[in-house]
Amino acid sequence: MTKSSDISASSLATRPFAKRVGEIEPFRVVEVLTRAKALEAKGHDIIHLEVGEPDFTTAEPIIAAGQLALANGETYYSQAAGIPELRVAISNHYKTEYGVDVAPARIMVTPGASGALLLIAALLVDAGDGMLLADPGYPCNRHFLRLVEGEGQLVPVGPEHRYQLNAKVAAEYWQDNTIGAMVASPANPTGEILTRQELSDLYDLCVKNKGHLVVDEIYHGLTYGKAAVSILEITDQAFVINSFSKYFGMTGWRLGWLVAPENAVVEMEKLAQNLFISMSTMGQHAALAAFTPETKKIFDERRDEFAKRRDYLLPELRRLGFDIPHQPAGALYLYAGISKFSNDSQQFCMDMLEKHGVAITPGLDFGRNQSNSHVRFAYTTSIERLQEAVRRMEKVLGGKD
Amino acid sequence: MTKSSDISASSLATRPFAKRVGEIEPFRVVEVLTRAKALEAKGHDIIHLEVGEPDFTTAEPIIAAGQLALANGETYYSQAAGIPELRVAISNHYKTEYGVDVAPARIMVTPGASGALLLIAALLVDAGDGMLLADPGYPCNRHFLRLVEGEGQLVPVGPEHRYQLNAKVAAEYWQDNTIGAMVASPANPTGEILTRQELSDLYDLCVKNKGHLVVDEIYHGLTYGKAAVSILEITDQAFVINSFSKYFGMTGWRLGWLVAPENAVVEMEKLAQNLFISMSTMGQHAALAAFTPETKKIFDERRDEFAKRRDYLLPELRRLGFDIPHQPAGALYLYAGISKFSNDSQQFCMDMLEKHGVAITPGLDFGRNQSNSHVRFAYTTSIERLQEAVRRMEKVLGGKD
Repeated sequence: MTKSSDISASSLATRPFAKRVGEIEPFRVVEVLTRAKALEAKGHDIIHLEVGEPDFTTAEPIIAAGQLALANGETYYSQAAGIPELRVAISNHYKTEYGVDVAPARIMVTPGASGALLLIAALLVDAGDGMLLADPGYPCNRHFLRLVEGEGQLVPVGPEHRYQLNAKVAAEYWQDNTIGAMVASPANPTGEILTRQELSDLYDLCVKNKGHLVVDEIYHGLTYGKAAVSILEITDQAFVINSFSKYFGMTGWRLGWLVAPENAVVEMEKLAQNLFISMSTMGQHAALAAFTPETKKIFDERRDEFAKRRDYLLPELRRLGFDIPHQPAGALYLYAGISKFSNDSQQFCMDMLEKHGVAITPGLDFGRNQSNSHVRFAYTTSIERLQEAVRRMEKVLGGKD
Repeated sequence: MTKSSDISASSLATRPFAKRVGEIEPFRVVEVLTRAKALEAKGHDIIHLEVGEPDFTTAEPIIAAGQLALANGETYYSQAAGIPELRVAISNHYKTEYGVDVAPARIMVTPGASGALLLIAALLVDAGDGMLLADPGYPCNRHFLRLVEGEGQLVPVGPEHRYQLNAKVAAEYWQDNTIGAMVASPANPTGEILTRQELSDLYDLCVKNKGHLVVDEIYHGLTYGKAAVSILEITDQAFVINSFSKYFGMTGWRLGWLVAPENAVVEMEKLAQNLFISMSTMGQHAALAAFTPETKKIFDERRDEFAKRRDYLLPELRRLGFDIPHQPAGALYLYAGISKFSNDSQQFCMDMLEKHGVAITPGLDFGRNQSNSHVRFAYTTSIERLQEAVRRMEKVLGGKD
């Protein structure tokens, strides 16, 4: 026994971890958050603009439904594709909000949008396959592809395309091993949407190239003007990722969903049986309360609050000298150029946090495309705190005026 | 728009799903359950012996703690490795129950044991790598390996080794691309454990071959005699998978944990950030209530009830002619040979369900080794219902006496 222990540390250490481990990057925003919390613990006042999480506790009707589900003993495994009532409720949501018929059988509840990404990578991506992704974009997408020995093919997109991967750019970057494109509308970190025409053109490109189109719609509902168009308004052959985390304010419950083409449903469910067994049963019963008029009213009030924050913060950041060429349509973010101040966004963010108590996320979290000259602001705190953040930044950066 | 839709179904259907999809099998127990529920809906009385889930609702103190966590607004993301209090509680559990020091930093909370399996596959397995697995065994293990383009290397094990993968057999089956072994103690579907000596020998073999040892301990606590030995009593260099589902009775909450060697912790956490972001925050606060003396008393009463069921069902099945050569030490299962009755366990199970209302799981769910001559009984229903199942089976199978 002791003999085993004695030789183990060195012997086992000689077998390296899988190669992908070296290629999957940490989620830097978590590092910023960790450091911010450490500073708070020392008594510093930190303004949190780093994490992409609504600052509102889950709406009361959902909380109450969760408590009731527990009282009712909803503590057992449930169906691998989700409880039928919730799949029907999501189907009704598409009818009500988009005027689109989506059969409940095509809807799978997942453990967060993260779970939906895992299922999609498992279903579609063979070793060596690539999918086109906008850079900047949500960093975990490419890591899910890497997990299954595929690759994210990062396509640099800039303000000239509202930071979106459109059909023209996608066609330029489409390679022999490309099996499709994964886009987000509204997008993280830029808050930009794809128009109906852009989505339609992208879909046509994918059809032409026999590729899959995956659209991340987790920020739907959080748009501050016209509602974002769903790809499901255009085709029933795309994959859609959605989530109860953002508009529905249920981050810590870990519930999302995906919509798949009909021919993928049986295989998706088989994968879910093996990879998840089940989602949180109580959480799913709670989520049913997200689709009542009473709860929707709460969500829409919160959305209006986010709109006010965007409308306050955007001109103020521009006044300070941040470069935000286009007013983003949705999500919780402002993606801002810092070239007036720095060419090292990591250092810039660290200084802002350490010296001024303003936590923001360096561009490096979202890709490689000009990431050193960009940062992301998440307006997930009150207007008063945003004002304080602007005051602090103004002291060090000055204003343009 | 309509143009896109018209050509889409045929065009996209020409791109096949990833190759792994054809190799990952459905969880057949789910099919049995689905058919059983359909029969119940038609008014049939079905005795459920198919699903490996305790038939007890989650213990009241955990329910209450979950409700309180919701009232307290614990609805936000939490740390990717789990909330610190829960990691400390699990560390204390190892001290109390096993007398082993496991630093909280080595413990990661996961979305079910399923999440732990995903992290381990992602961390350890390169494309083309294999891990040794006992056949029969938990079917999803090999599918997690396949997910990341590795493979489960099934090792047939029989009653002569109490259906366990021991060091001698593992050494015979170790191949050039084998990077380790994954075992379970107590095991599903056999309920058999690995002794301290067997675990120690297996570990020595892995060290000798520079391989990783992964031990699934999710049925720990559910042993009906001596407690199962944890690999952590032998080495701090193995990976351990555990769960709140079985002994702790929290299946539908989707919470598990893993214990990793110290040098794996940083990489594991990075993977968890990307693959999960977070686990259910409310669920983790609820799980803290699993470690009080009051709750442990409930768990141990339930364990005693499972022991009574095993002690009733085992001799009765033997009397009916099922072949169960060895009394299993734990878990919720009896793995039974049916060669006296049939050489087609799928058909046998279907007949039992359709004609006699007894739902059991065919051996094919657990591998290929003599799977057609075996079935699994889960004693996850009351003694009275087990008695009724025996009466029904006796009518058709007769008794040996």
